[in-house]
Amino acid sequence: MPTFHALAAHEAGGELKPFEYDPGDLGPDEVEIAVKYCGLCHSDLSMLGNDWGISVYPYVPGHEVAGVVAAKGDRVTGLEVGQSVGLGWYSSSCMFCDQCMSGDHNLCGSAGMTIVGRHGGFADRVRASQEWVIPIPDSLDPSVVGPMFCGGATVFNPFLQSGVRPIDRIGVVGIGGLGHMALKIGNAWGCEVTAFSGSPDKEDEAREMGADHFVNSRDPQSLESVAGSFDLILDTVGAELPWEAYINALSPRGKLHIVGAAPSVSTPVMPLIMAQRTITATPVGSPQTLREMVRFATRHDIAPIVEPMKLSEANDAMERLRSGSPRYRIVLENDLG
Amino acid sequence: MPTFHALAAHEAGGELKPFEYDPGDLGPDEVEIAVKYCGLCHSDLSMLGNDWGISVYPYVPGHEVAGVVAAKGDRVTGLEVGQSVGLGWYSSSCMFCDQCMSGDHNLCGSAGMTIVGRHGGFADRVRASQEWVIPIPDSLDPSVVGPMFCGGATVFNPFLQSGVRPIDRIGVVGIGGLGHMALKIGNAWGCEVTAFSGSPDKEDEAREMGADHFVNSRDPQSLESVAGSFDLILDTVGAELPWEAYINALSPRGKLHIVGAAPSVSTPVMPLIMAQRTITATPVGSPQTLREMVRFATRHDIAPIVEPMKLSEANDAMERLRSGSPRYRIVLENDLG
Repeated sequence: MPTFHALAAHEAGGELKPFEYDPGDLGPDEVEIAVKYCGLCHSDLSMLGNDWGISVYPYVPGHEVAGVVAAKGDRVTGLEVGQSVGLGWYSSSCMFCDQCMSGDHNLCGSAGMTIVGRHGGFADRVRASQEWVIPIPDSLDPSVVGPMFCGGATVFNPFLQSGVRPIDRIGVVGIGGLGHMALKIGNAWGCEVTAFSGSPDKEDEAREMGADHFVNSRDPQSLESVAGSFDLILDTVGAELPWEAYINALSPRGKLHIVGAAPSVSTPVMPLIMAQRTITATPVGSPQTLREMVRFATRHDIAPIVEPMKLSEANDAMERLRSGSPRYRIVLENDLG
Repeated sequence: MPTFHALAAHEAGGELKPFEYDPGDLGPDEVEIAVKYCGLCHSDLSMLGNDWGISVYPYVPGHEVAGVVAAKGDRVTGLEVGQSVGLGWYSSSCMFCDQCMSGDHNLCGSAGMTIVGRHGGFADRVRASQEWVIPIPDSLDPSVVGPMFCGGATVFNPFLQSGVRPIDRIGVVGIGGLGHMALKIGNAWGCEVTAFSGSPDKEDEAREMGADHFVNSRDPQSLESVAGSFDLILDTVGAELPWEAYINALSPRGKLHIVGAAPSVSTPVMPLIMAQRTITATPVGSPQTLREMVRFATRHDIAPIVEPMKLSEANDAMERLRSGSPRYRIVLENDLG
């Protein structure tokens, strides 16, 4: 019987402690990944606290995995043992529903999620269905690439789904784990990029990442000054925003694209109608979107800016994320074994 | 000096009374229309009451005009005196801004509106810039076609702007002046069409207009039973809806398209994110959309169902609309003399 060595919390908000489990037989479409690095996403923290009411304990966080294929099922033909791969938020999909058949595996109603009702990547091994295991080319540094597979894909996907063009003016709200990658992608996409942040001390770094402009999002007058400006505003903040101000910051036909899990969104209808504005939202991305992201990141030399820590420091890392201070994403190196 | 004979209210909610005004010289790009018929839209009533705070008195309602060209300016080349034409919500546009240059004249920031700050179609004559004057082919009945140019265009435009396909399942919320035309358009578009109405006695008529299904929108269980069903839900109701129920009625990638001027819209974010749902909204349509609508209506024999009245009965017509009972649109024949 195989045994996986992981870190798990046994109750909501509990400390992560060594935890061993038997993953059972490897399925024919499954890939077993030896974890080398794992990013720490805000969702790991939300799930630790059972903020969404869907956590199951023992809970093993981790869904921004970079590792190598350690084993593969009989029907896995496109991946080889020893190959570098990544894994993000989703870990399986039904492969038969309308969404899966349309390439939208991330919209599959029965998609499995790496840390929901199963054990994630804060471990020596983690498994996933082959469609969600994404090859990592040698050109991408495995010690920093993990966050691309959740946070990176979450902000890359809107460029595809909302049809962003290089002539567009885009805004990125929140310059953290997701937002800092969005600035780099938007810059490489050819757009005019504005960073919205409540931390003015991030301006210089935001400009280095590719922002052409910086707006202090805590200043209502600054928000008013950019009314009618943006073809797309990408909201990466998991909290309520002054929605009407951001709607009014959109140009005619502009889109507010939400990827941050705020509780709710509300706005007067007239500013939507009169300028044909749109509110839309997406979850991470499809497997094909993840593959395209890897190619785009390779070609444009895009990588997250990370704070390296060890998996054995996972509790400290959680605390650092809770305090909101990482710049910009924590990646934990597996030192469990 | 020319004199136009109209009906005007002199105060918010006031009675419409005979009113004469001098329209001034005809501009080089303007068309003067001899009004034959004019539809009564809910916006006429909202403007009468100054509900939106933009009414100017004396106020002449009327922006669903069918008539003939009575005169034209020097630069008007595409329309001839005596030709049948229609006029809707918009009456001019700057013809130079990014929106106008993109064909989105209805999103022009300085677009003129037929009954806002100028006098509308409850009159013997009304003027508009040539781009908003739409030729009416002989195949369309002038006594019923007027409402196409505001209400009809308002529900036709979403099919273009939201990219509705004939394989789509669509819902139309509110089976009134706008919604009944949306059923006919959706049916001709090739879609599977569901009517949502709080008036179960409209079911038979809705099915005659092209609805495949009918849902009682006042019954929460009926709304729940269609969860995940619709590629597009077209909201024609100018009031708050149980937004979350309609969002949940959308399929993955589904769109809630708002054309009814409710005060505000709000929804939890997660149902948007997890199924990539969208809220969008549009104002009437561009001149090219109006032209395409006329062609489509001709080809599919689409016309509003109207209650004919006389312009001299305008106050009674307003009262009938206020009580919410027209089936489905009142059109006033010009009998002013």
